[in-house]
Amino acid sequence: MNADPRILKGVNAAVLTPLNRDMSPDIGRMTAHCQWLLANGSDGLGILGTTGEAQSFTVRERMDILEGLGKAGIPLAKTMPGTGAANYVDAAELTKHSVDIGAGGALLLPPYYIKGVGDDGLFVSFDKIINHVASNDLRVYLYHFPQMSGIPFSHDLIDRLVQAFPGIVVGVKDSSGDEQNMLEMLKKFPGFNVFPGSESAFLNVLKAGGAGCITAVSNVAMAAAQRVYSAWTNEQRVDQGAEAIIQALRTVIAGYPLSSALKALMARHHGDEGWDGVRPPLVSLSEQQRNELFAAIDTIDYAIPAV
Amino acid sequence: MNADPRILKGVNAAVLTPLNRDMSPDIGRMTAHCQWLLANGSDGLGILGTTGEAQSFTVRERMDILEGLGKAGIPLAKTMPGTGAANYVDAAELTKHSVDIGAGGALLLPPYYIKGVGDDGLFVSFDKIINHVASNDLRVYLYHFPQMSGIPFSHDLIDRLVQAFPGIVVGVKDSSGDEQNMLEMLKKFPGFNVFPGSESAFLNVLKAGGAGCITAVSNVAMAAAQRVYSAWTNEQRVDQGAEAIIQALRTVIAGYPLSSALKALMARHHGDEGWDGVRPPLVSLSEQQRNELFAAIDTIDYAIPAV
Repeated sequence: MNADPRILKGVNAAVLTPLNRDMSPDIGRMTAHCQWLLANGSDGLGILGTTGEAQSFTVRERMDILEGLGKAGIPLAKTMPGTGAANYVDAAELTKHSVDIGAGGALLLPPYYIKGVGDDGLFVSFDKIINHVASNDLRVYLYHFPQMSGIPFSHDLIDRLVQAFPGIVVGVKDSSGDEQNMLEMLKKFPGFNVFPGSESAFLNVLKAGGAGCITAVSNVAMAAAQRVYSAWTNEQRVDQGAEAIIQALRTVIAGYPLSSALKALMARHHGDEGWDGVRPPLVSLSEQQRNELFAAIDTIDYAIPAV
Repeated sequence: MNADPRILKGVNAAVLTPLNRDMSPDIGRMTAHCQWLLANGSDGLGILGTTGEAQSFTVRERMDILEGLGKAGIPLAKTMPGTGAANYVDAAELTKHSVDIGAGGALLLPPYYIKGVGDDGLFVSFDKIINHVASNDLRVYLYHFPQMSGIPFSHDLIDRLVQAFPGIVVGVKDSSGDEQNMLEMLKKFPGFNVFPGSESAFLNVLKAGGAGCITAVSNVAMAAAQRVYSAWTNEQRVDQGAEAIIQALRTVIAGYPLSSALKALMARHHGDEGWDGVRPPLVSLSEQQRNELFAAIDTIDYAIPAV
């Protein structure tokens, strides 16, 4: 499975979705941000995940974002858009659209409104989505984020999906923060591509055979995250300096709503207040939060790279 | 506020959404079910709530259901469709559509994917929805169901919404099962229309000034629920027999996934297996569950009315 050239390895930013003043997605700013991430070492682009506020956009808006990035020249083969939704019909349409347009992978949340459902119903949801897409080009990454979705992926369910859709269900983004769960998945599912959703588990999971990471903090710390990844992957060496930077950034930023904090940092970096908008139910940081965040970040020996 | 003739009082079924074999909504069966409920004492129709699997349908499907019922002659002024969604844009469109087509009220979930958000962002979401609809005909009922949405309505938020939108934000459906919360809302917000989402709190909340109920079990026990409501409302009398029936039914049915159990009961009642389908992530009851459910229901001195 790992030999599949389509598999997105390495460091992926959980890309922010900048907004226009009317709260519509700002494709221009987003394209520039994606280019900047790729220029600074991003192997791929985890667009429209939780950090990218995907579930705060409509199906049409999400398709427009992906199409807009493609038209602007972002290599969609490097993107892994979140295509999950509360209902399987929207998820199936979004996933099909992402494959049709050439996205490298699809990050799939389980249907997440009804809680307490069993694996059988979740399996049927994925079965319907995958059969609707009906393409060998589909690469599904399961999006395990029980703190948001309320629906954890059991290992039994993952096993059923991997068995039923070999070469299609190829990995997981685990945003639970539960490092033990990630290490267990690597053991149980040979060749499964496990992407931690935060810096905390990144290095340990990488050492155990992880595929890389898809993280929010990479929006501002891509170069350092790539140094951690490359040092280990190419030389089995821990880049202590880079690792210290991403851990320190994570520790500070995790004290705030992630998308709001990262957008505040982007706004400051670019001197562009337009970066600051988030969609409700998120709100932008208050003046006080912003000042505290900036002060804390500035104690870290780190500068967001200019390019 | 209670003098508003638009307010939906009394017993409302949380109406099931029957499906065709291809999982599309079956408007014909649903129309017949609504007619049957109204003929058996339903004051209103809580369509497309959690029992109606609303979040498992697309925006277009949800609009089609409402339009289909209207065309088939169901009095939409008696309906309170769920119009909430994970994103405020879809919720705004659904709510506007429901008002434009003449629905009596709109049952609004908070945006429910991102957890841990504060009241400010939730307020902005509702503000955007209500301003998008921009109609004095809008009557919003807040849908408090933290077990599913993960987003409780704080009393502070309710207070802000009632103050900001008097005559528009007029009530709540509380499916939390927390009777104390319902009684407190009645005290804190004079004239607020509090609908318990299950039989357990129905009578006590009614005695304290509650507006009625919107419940899943009413799909099969409408006549008994209406007897409880009418006896108290008209004569301040508790109909012990009817109350015992709805409590007993609730106790049995709550041991199963509600929509699946109720659809199984409808399928048996009508001798119509087509009633049995649910959308994933729900699954239909197993043969064993079905047999156990039917056996338990049959110990209750109760028959689903023929008409």
